[in-house]
Amino acid sequence: MRCANFIVKKPMVIGHECAGVIEEVGSEVKSLKVGDRVALEPGISCRQCNLCKEGRYNLCPKMKFFGSPPTNGSLANKVVHPAYLCFKLPDNVSLEEGAMCEPLSVGVHACRRANVSPDTNVLIMGAGPIGLITLLAARAFGAPRIVIVDVDDCRLSIAKTLGADKTVKVSTSTEDIGKEMVQIQDAMGSGIDVSFDCVGLNKTMSTALIATRSGGKVCLIGLAQSEMTAPLTPAAAREVDVIGIFRYRNTWPLCIEMLKTGKIDVKPLITHRFGFSQKEVEEAFATSAKGGNAIKIMFNL
Amino acid sequence: MRCANFIVKKPMVIGHECAGVIEEVGSEVKSLKVGDRVALEPGISCRQCNLCKEGRYNLCPKMKFFGSPPTNGSLANKVVHPAYLCFKLPDNVSLEEGAMCEPLSVGVHACRRANVSPDTNVLIMGAGPIGLITLLAARAFGAPRIVIVDVDDCRLSIAKTLGADKTVKVSTSTEDIGKEMVQIQDAMGSGIDVSFDCVGLNKTMSTALIATRSGGKVCLIGLAQSEMTAPLTPAAAREVDVIGIFRYRNTWPLCIEMLKTGKIDVKPLITHRFGFSQKEVEEAFATSAKGGNAIKIMFNL
Amino acid sequence: MRCANFIVKKPMVIGHECAGVIEEVGSEVKSLKVGDRVALEPGISCRQCNLCKEGRYNLCPKMKFFGSPPTNGSLANKVVHPAYLCFKLPDNVSLEEGAMCEPLSVGVHACRRANVSPDTNVLIMGAGPIGLITLLAARAFGAPRIVIVDVDDCRLSIAKTLGADKTVKVSTSTEDIGKEMVQIQDAMGSGIDVSFDCVGLNKTMSTALIATRSGGKVCLIGLAQSEMTAPLTPAAAREVDVIGIFRYRNTWPLCIEMLKTGKIDVKPLITHRFGFSQKEVEEAFATSAKGGNAIKIMFNL
Amino acid sequence: MRCANFIVKKPMVIGHECAGVIEEVGSEVKSLKVGDRVALEPGISCRQCNLCKEGRYNLCPKMKFFGSPPTNGSLANKVVHPAYLCFKLPDNVSLEEGAMCEPLSVGVHACRRANVSPDTNVLIMGAGPIGLITLLAARAFGAPRIVIVDVDDCRLSIAKTLGADKTVKVSTSTEDIGKEMVQIQDAMGSGIDVSFDCVGLNKTMSTALIATRSGGKVCLIGLAQSEMTAPLTPAAAREVDVIGIFRYRNTWPLCIEMLKTGKIDVKPLITHRFGFSQKEVEEAFATSAKGGNAIKIMFNL
Repeated sequence: MRCANFIVKKPMVIGHECAGVIEEVGSEVKSLKVGDRVALEPGISCRQCNLCKEGRYNLCPKMKFFGSPPTNGSLANKVVHPAYLCFKLPDNVSLEEGAMCEPLSVGVHACRRANVSPDTNVLIMGAGPIGLITLLAARAFGAPRIVIVDVDDCRLSIAKTLGADKTVKVSTSTEDIGKEMVQIQDAMGSGIDVSFDCVGLNKTMSTALIATRSGGKVCLIGLAQSEMTAPLTPAAAREVDVIGIFRYRNTWPLCIEMLKTGKIDVKPLITHRFGFSQKEVEEAFATSAKGGNAIKIMFNL
Repeated sequence: MRCANFIVKKPMVIGHECAGVIEEVGSEVKSLKVGDRVALEPGISCRQCNLCKEGRYNLCPKMKFFGSPPTNGSLANKVVHPAYLCFKLPDNVSLEEGAMCEPLSVGVHACRRANVSPDTNVLIMGAGPIGLITLLAARAFGAPRIVIVDVDDCRLSIAKTLGADKTVKVSTSTEDIGKEMVQIQDAMGSGIDVSFDCVGLNKTMSTALIATRSGGKVCLIGLAQSEMTAPLTPAAAREVDVIGIFRYRNTWPLCIEMLKTGKIDVKPLITHRFGFSQKEVEEAFATSAKGGNAIKIMFNL
Repeated sequence: MRCANFIVKKPMVIGHECAGVIEEVGSEVKSLKVGDRVALEPGISCRQCNLCKEGRYNLCPKMKFFGSPPTNGSLANKVVHPAYLCFKLPDNVSLEEGAMCEPLSVGVHACRRANVSPDTNVLIMGAGPIGLITLLAARAFGAPRIVIVDVDDCRLSIAKTLGADKTVKVSTSTEDIGKEMVQIQDAMGSGIDVSFDCVGLNKTMSTALIATRSGGKVCLIGLAQSEMTAPLTPAAAREVDVIGIFRYRNTWPLCIEMLKTGKIDVKPLITHRFGFSQKEVEEAFATSAKGGNAIKIMFNL
Repeated sequence: MRCANFIVKKPMVIGHECAGVIEEVGSEVKSLKVGDRVALEPGISCRQCNLCKEGRYNLCPKMKFFGSPPTNGSLANKVVHPAYLCFKLPDNVSLEEGAMCEPLSVGVHACRRANVSPDTNVLIMGAGPIGLITLLAARAFGAPRIVIVDVDDCRLSIAKTLGADKTVKVSTSTEDIGKEMVQIQDAMGSGIDVSFDCVGLNKTMSTALIATRSGGKVCLIGLAQSEMTAPLTPAAAREVDVIGIFRYRNTWPLCIEMLKTGKIDVKPLITHRFGFSQKEVEEAFATSAKGGNAIKIMFNL
């Protein structure tokens, strides 16, 4: 079994979105004490390579990341983790919201890399969890107008509730790109400065590349396909740049701040909750596999 | 007949690389006088749209560009052109070198957009005229190490003469990417920070995307294919960004400065010269069509 | 009489904040028609120099700007102005709000240059019109926490109404900087990423330089003093950069968008209104000179 | 005794420019072995704070830096240092050149922060060691034209030898700024894009602020004065930004690369050599204190 270049060779613990209560601290830890409620950034980088030293530690080749083989994940009663990657939660931010800092970080990192601001009209391809999170982040970064596209009515109606200005339902066929493009551009009503492809298929990427205005950016977040066929050269000839997104860096403090002040509300994304017994865990994974209206499923001890 | 979105509907003059001597100036022109030798920047932008006002005038949707239908080109005895797009040549820069400012501008613009500096190891895919020009520009921007790749031995040997640190000969088959990658990385000897794809084929782009280090950039300059199939998502997941290049902006003063000080020598790229009679012009185009060792062919009045 | 390098040699019309209704359009104008309500960007740059071509047209040495000698201003019944500098107002944005695009543009330009985002805690020195406008702009750009400083209680209470998180009253004496710094840092509660000096005195600049965190920025907008004495080197040794602000560029579309959507409300800044008779104009200037609670004074035809 | 905020409370070892031969390595060190010749980056940052994680580790508030109280320096027979801060020297780079990576790093960091490129005409205020080093770095980063200013003929003639295009001798009186400005601008012959103030006095900073073109940058490196009086607001009103420089980050690999390829030659800056006996050390410090033609003085074991 594998996920990209990560290959599972023996049974391991999965999971990388988590928050919890400190049970014990090392002798030199001064920033935390027993009983503190914290959200955990799941990756431990080497802090010695060029990428770490330049501040792009998310690209560290020696990263140890919860649940990425061979590193065990955080779906456990207890984990050991460096203090500098544990971020204290304010009283008005729950552990569940704390765990949501992880997916929210992807949206925040994407908005930072794409330089989203009040100057940026945003198109989002895909209204799954990452598309919806990116919607929340783009709004918080000041995007004046956000259009979101999906094949599923239910997801689009959630996107609408979460603040999308317009939604556009599309098909899975690439033959429809032409007429869908008209709908997307009508929905935006002005140039699209940044598109986020939160799916990563030939069709979503092609749509994003064609829809974005000259000089704009397409952020590729979704990874559905590896080899991709898309009109890259016409986009390049309009200086539409393609920005890659991998995880995140330095995002927890900002995520916690935005949850604390209510600038972002992730609670509507938490659709299901389970306990941590064998039975409930199995039920949770079955719920997730079924899809439907499940966005984020939480385990609570 | 067409070139990208430019469609030729009636006979027109082609050409956009030129320099000449001022024969007449408008009554308000103060920067130039009759007899001045000048190089011409070939595109007239609207100077009113957002892209123009933001300084990205190369993307102006109303651009009038020598030889792009329906605008006539500069392969003529005389042209009328705005004074602010005519740049005076120093005594030690010939008209031929002045005309070379146009292709050189593509390389300069690419190096600026990719932020090439003494920190940037450069890979160039393709040793045609644009690949060779980009090599000269990257060297002038301080790139410490430049490897250039082509299918043709003759071109690679010219690249070597022009200052490439190493050359790698490759095949046209995508099946060879794996073993060629080893050769390319051996030739570089360290991480590739920026790759310039001066061809624009599935294979060159795939090679560039895979070869570039995490966090690096691929500049797409060549436009051989429109729809492109390449491993975009794995590159995005290493935050290798794809930077589009379209023509240039604000490059003539720098090009002229670099020609004047000898920082860049474009003369070796001028392989053939012709007069401007009907017969010689036909011969020139035949020479160009034949390919072979022709890089840049000059017409002199 | 002079203002900086601008010297008044003969009587002239002043004013550069204005909006109005189109009475006549040139034969080639397609973007506007008689009766359109528009806000005017007051500066006409040469569009030929390097700074214009690079998109920094606010620095154009040949700028012709309403009310900057020898160019007459806009405090008149009618003005002639290029169509590309006239921006159509939506129905829900009044002419008065349209005129406010000018001062708002200063705040927007400052936030852009300082890269204000949800990551940026902001300190504002001075709660005069520009300080208050910068407050509104910084909030719209996502600044999570804004502290504003002034010597005047009345201004600070307006700042509070407009959304400042905390206000700090200070003295005019530089001897108090030490203890005021404690108050300012307490009010912020975390590092100050960007300070805007909207006054431009030794004391305000010194406070800004000392208060800003290592690696942060101080934006100098106010111009009260020319020669300035401040602890520049200790700030430089913490890589606190000083960013200069001159007018604005490419701001009208964004300002109008933010007024239209209600993201920014400038109406509370308009404290007085006058007609355009000789008598009322004199009264208006007297009101302004008196200071007190006047922020922005509008003339309506 | 103090240097800025660093206060010496007890006798300590000084020195932070060094290179040497590995005598022993820790059990987990894989990148180095006994006998390797290495240059040492002298600062150990915490690698946990926001500034470290963002890649601006030079600003880390917990930095431990050779010779900055209370951390002992490197003027010793042996030092213990983390492997990731020891950089292997190629065969053609001597230990003396390796030690020069430290001052060279200041110039490299300044050129990076100021974004020096072939587009950047450079003015350097001060031809002391840092001014000369900055000259070498700016040249390597492609600056087409470099003018250097000092009060001392001898230093200026060294600058000329090292590659300055022009030198301008000035007085110490601020009254002469006006006429010196004419000389400086004549020497440059075109706009000054970036000025490096390698002195840090009222006069040098004032000259830099006035001389730099609109939209350019002044880098403040020298720290001669703390409180500084200079025409900051007129510079800000031309958007001349002031960029602070503190030490360096991620510079050793580039410095070593440039020494190895001969792009930069630091050997002419090494004017004196001493052994490491009590007597020779005293003699060395006396030589340095005397000033004169001493630029860099080396101790060799």
